[in-house]
Amino acid sequence: MTTAQSALTQLKARLAEVADLERVGMLLAWDQEVAMPRGGAEARAQQRASVERLCHERFTDDRVGELLDAAVAETPLDEDLLAVTRRDLDKARRIPGDLVAELVHAAATGHEAWTKAHAASDFTPFEPFLRRNVELRRQYIACFPEVPRPYDALLDDFEPQMRTEQAQDVLGRLRDGLIPLVEAAAGPPADAILQGSSFPVDAQRGFVETVLRQVGVDDERWRLDVAVHPFAATMGLGDVRLTTRYAPDDLDSLYSSLHEFGHGLYEAGIDPALARSPLQGGVSSAVHESQSRLWENMVGRSSGFWRWGFPHLQAAFPDRFAGRTWQDVHRAVNAVRPSLIRVTADEVTYGLHIALRFELELALFEGDLDPADLPEAWNERTRAYLGLEVPDDAHGVLQDVHWAEGLFGYFPTYALGTVISGQLWARINADVPDLEERLARGDFGPLREWLAERVHRHGRRLTPTELVARAAGGPLDPEPYLDYLRAKLAGSAPLVG
Amino acid sequence: MTTAQSALTQLKARLAEVADLERVGMLLAWDQEVAMPRGGAEARAQQRASVERLCHERFTDDRVGELLDAAVAETPLDEDLLAVTRRDLDKARRIPGDLVAELVHAAATGHEAWTKAHAASDFTPFEPFLRRNVELRRQYIACFPEVPRPYDALLDDFEPQMRTEQAQDVLGRLRDGLIPLVEAAAGPPADAILQGSSFPVDAQRGFVETVLRQVGVDDERWRLDVAVHPFAATMGLGDVRLTTRYAPDDLDSLYSSLHEFGHGLYEAGIDPALARSPLQGGVSSAVHESQSRLWENMVGRSSGFWRWGFPHLQAAFPDRFAGRTWQDVHRAVNAVRPSLIRVTADEVTYGLHIALRFELELALFEGDLDPADLPEAWNERTRAYLGLEVPDDAHGVLQDVHWAEGLFGYFPTYALGTVISGQLWARINADVPDLEERLARGDFGPLREWLAERVHRHGRRLTPTELVARAAGGPLDPEPYLDYLRAKLAGSAPLVG
Repeated sequence: MTTAQSALTQLKARLAEVADLERVGMLLAWDQEVAMPRGGAEARAQQRASVERLCHERFTDDRVGELLDAAVAETPLDEDLLAVTRRDLDKARRIPGDLVAELVHAAATGHEAWTKAHAASDFTPFEPFLRRNVELRRQYIACFPEVPRPYDALLDDFEPQMRTEQAQDVLGRLRDGLIPLVEAAAGPPADAILQGSSFPVDAQRGFVETVLRQVGVDDERWRLDVAVHPFAATMGLGDVRLTTRYAPDDLDSLYSSLHEFGHGLYEAGIDPALARSPLQGGVSSAVHESQSRLWENMVGRSSGFWRWGFPHLQAAFPDRFAGRTWQDVHRAVNAVRPSLIRVTADEVTYGLHIALRFELELALFEGDLDPADLPEAWNERTRAYLGLEVPDDAHGVLQDVHWAEGLFGYFPTYALGTVISGQLWARINADVPDLEERLARGDFGPLREWLAERVHRHGRRLTPTELVARAAGGPLDPEPYLDYLRAKLAGSAPLVG
Repeated sequence: MTTAQSALTQLKARLAEVADLERVGMLLAWDQEVAMPRGGAEARAQQRASVERLCHERFTDDRVGELLDAAVAETPLDEDLLAVTRRDLDKARRIPGDLVAELVHAAATGHEAWTKAHAASDFTPFEPFLRRNVELRRQYIACFPEVPRPYDALLDDFEPQMRTEQAQDVLGRLRDGLIPLVEAAAGPPADAILQGSSFPVDAQRGFVETVLRQVGVDDERWRLDVAVHPFAATMGLGDVRLTTRYAPDDLDSLYSSLHEFGHGLYEAGIDPALARSPLQGGVSSAVHESQSRLWENMVGRSSGFWRWGFPHLQAAFPDRFAGRTWQDVHRAVNAVRPSLIRVTADEVTYGLHIALRFELELALFEGDLDPADLPEAWNERTRAYLGLEVPDDAHGVLQDVHWAEGLFGYFPTYALGTVISGQLWARINADVPDLEERLARGDFGPLREWLAERVHRHGRRLTPTELVARAAGGPLDPEPYLDYLRAKLAGSAPLVG
């Protein structure tokens, strides 16, 4: 074996160990949300910190850099592995250990402060914690002096290699396209068929399981559990875990399950050859979100889905849906109704919630918005985009936990993912012209296969830009998504009955 | 801070990290048995190997030895910490890395070979794997040239500092005391009140939960799950996890739950000051087993327990127990019936199953028993101790997985634990004279408190010998346990109604 070959082998072994530790960290987090008795919180925090620290140490260790310099790729896969590892290592090494520790600590204390402030609906005591997070993120940005704009450094953590300018352009066009749609949709209140306290949790669970089995979940490789804040986590090949939550008075459990299924299916579809390497994972937050939004919205709110699903819904809740039709449900799940809370927003207004947050983040890091002035700026934009008055901070600036944890640059990926889902959906329907009929028969196979081939299997081998260009046929573009919404709202789309 | 103080601080931090990794390894194992979809097996094996390797590396690292040499204890707790760490480190460093890897590999392949051989009830194909395990354990023994007898090195892994001679003496006396008890108890078949397929699993679950709540399990710090082979695992302070299994045709779920509760209560009762250190854990396998056997047998088969528990049993299975009394159940759970399988053996014959295994292990490592001759030796001893003919290897030498995994020296601790439980039980009843009346009222608090004070809180601070001497008032002695059995079988004990 040559020195270069030996270096490559040793590097892969070290990266595999780091990948194992990352998955172990995910299991610790999954278990904490799903299984752990509350009394285990303190020990778990220490276990997670130890695993994260070791994971960071083993990756940023000088030895990894030496092996990376000595290794020579033998295959195209190796080339991708070395390129992604170089990029990850360069980023990880830029951040001083002290700053990493401060960011982690500020996230934890910020979360705690937010919990109290949110419960009291009072921004004022939370403001110093938010200010601290902003300051620390400025220090983080300073570790990347070469980026053209400060926000670029934040965005890059979630959307590798995307520039703020592009995000601004795409989200601006999305916002401008959504506002008239929301105005046009304003009308009589939607049918209350999906509201009111009569969805027994056991029946919901049975219905959700029926849907998940049909779209592609099996007991051999998946689990479904309950969590307060639903999420998906992949522990390794053949071990994908979804969570949802059941409220007695709505069917949000279905949509959160389909959303997390989209995330899980992405991870489950990554080429097994990438296992235990930095290439095993979703390529960006937006691409990940494109998968969850596609299953939640494009599939879960389609007429095809409900033509298949309605009899199962009726069987689960016979009293509730006696004498109703799939069209009633389809109409209800597509109702547009401006509201104050992002996580329960409808498909159309959701993008405006994101545009608002993205613009405020830009103003905080690149403009002259002071953290103290956030509530006012928030309420102003809510008035402008959604036509609503914010009654209190809990229904306004305090509703999301992201900023409390120092997560800036994350929000835009929700809307960028939605944009990508629109582009993919247009391509899928062109490639599989009878898709709606197939969904109506409960045949989700062709959709899964299309996504696996075009998106999932690549893992992190392509850049997000390359992936979107290949899968969607061009750069990020909100028009296909806006067209999809326009067609649905006009009731004329092939997918709307 | 002095150099010695700094070394102590750094040493504690490193040991805390190692302790975290050990608990993480436990979670990986727990999850694999309880939650993991089968498709995750390959990734999980790699994750467990990575965590175990790191744990071993971080502990046996030269730095730990340097810190240990430089550190000076400031408190009695520090002294115990340094002593236990020195001992653990000395043992861990004796074993060459290659041998560790071979032992792990042979355990995995041995397990696989055993699974097939057990299913086919054929010892022959399994014999080479067993032989390999014996050979490797001889190499392991050779790492401890100073021990007086080869088996001492094996026993020490489970029963620190115990010598084979002592185990042989105690188990010999136990065996000689049990044989006449088994012969005397031979009589008409026991009441079939607890046999036959009419214990619906949901009702069992409810009954087991009622019992566990009463003995001391709460949702804040405990979980109960189902596993094929029941076990207990403690993830940290306030996170104790029990498992059991439900068969539709017996009430073994109760006894396996009480058994695992005994293990869990031990870990839950360790002084929080020992958390995240090598002192946080049970002091030996036998002491651990004394706790599980005490709750399973001394409590769970006592008249006091059934005076309290019978109405709950009746409520769970109203048809089954209509017109019966607590005495009927008490008699049935104490029936003595020689049988071939250890794990379903009654309380009295159980010790003979262990004596047989211990004697065969001694013959393998210190006598001239060849692995090929094990089945014959097994069958012979079964005839001598239990008066039974072994019809096939699955009901004989192949029934347990321990040897397939290279676990030699483990079996005797089951019986040593039983012996200790007898000594503790005698002391508890002397200290709490109205214990039976308290159990009959469902008051398990005094028993828990006695055990916490005398046994649990010490963790690994005392040696097993010191702990037994203090808690039981003397060295290991099978007489109290034999007296307890004799009294129960004579129907004259204060604890037998």
